[in-house]
Amino acid sequence: MAYIPLDESIPGIRSLLAYFPAIEPAMKGLMQTMMRQDRGLNKGERELIAAWVSHHNHCTACENIHGAVASHLLGWDEADYARMIKEKAGASPRLEALLALARQVTCNGKKVTPEQIAKAKALGCTDQEIHDTILIASMFCMFNRYIDGLGLTSRDTPESLKTRAQHLAEYGYGT
Amino acid sequence: MAYIPLDESIPGIRSLLAYFPAIEPAMKGLMQTMMRQDRGLNKGERELIAAWVSHHNHCTACENIHGAVASHLLGWDEADYARMIKEKAGASPRLEALLALARQVTCNGKKVTPEQIAKAKALGCTDQEIHDTILIASMFCMFNRYIDGLGLTSRDTPESLKTRAQHLAEYGYGT
Repeated sequence: MAYIPLDESIPGIRSLLAYFPAIEPAMKGLMQTMMRQDRGLNKGERELIAAWVSHHNHCTACENIHGAVASHLLGWDEADYARMIKEKAGASPRLEALLALARQVTCNGKKVTPEQIAKAKALGCTDQEIHDTILIASMFCMFNRYIDGLGLTSRDTPESLKTRAQHLAEYGYGT
Repeated sequence: MAYIPLDESIPGIRSLLAYFPAIEPAMKGLMQTMMRQDRGLNKGERELIAAWVSHHNHCTACENIHGAVASHLLGWDEADYARMIKEKAGASPRLEALLALARQVTCNGKKVTPEQIAKAKALGCTDQEIHDTILIASMFCMFNRYIDGLGLTSRDTPESLKTRAQHLAEYGYGT
């Protein structure tokens, strides 16, 4: 049970936005701007970075939904997703370099090194892709903490996750 | 030097907002909504939580400016601020409990325990104050990573910090 009186029948972070509606436009703006572009990183890659960071922060609620959205967008089944998270199976060298940056950001921003950035650039990552990877990873370090710090737990079933993921993949975060 | 081509003559996170203006409304909205309320936590306490989290994330750029804004709003000199950060000198038991929550969130949201929440509530912290503390701490886990992950360094001098802090304390983050 959450540490403050939330309507936990509302899934995920939406119960927090219902508790404190003043924050909703900024949170939705952040998600819609960063997760729904196809410039550089595609939408599936953006969702994968979100799931990857949430996995390493042990935030099950966020990993479940963003892993499901990523899988939907990338055409993966559960086994494909599990292999990616475990051993980066299926990642191009470019995506692998970006996931490595996101992994360091999950620990602390200062863990990113000039050598890692140079490697990512040598593999074809653009400045915008590096920027977006670091910002998405940073955003999920916020969302994961906001959810877990307030003791929110996921009430999703495999079916509700699938429905929600399909909706988010199709309509995004602005609705 | 930053890892992507930023105009580093613009101080702090504003150089990132200038690089990627699409994110500016959401970022400013988040800051203005959470840092400029006087409901529950006052503005000085909000800035102190931001500085406290930035200190523990070793993000000098963020700690410098938010520590200066907190000191301005709380009427502290540098020594008062240093004592607060080092040994929580001058904090009421209520503020001490909130700083302890923010400290756990800095590590990971799951580090917050029901016992800590119960202690904060017993000391008079409201649900809204607990919510705001955890969200502000989470936000600065994002901002710190966004800045440090992209290799941004502070070019502030003691004088420019003082001027910026006074401006932020008076006018907020919407301008």
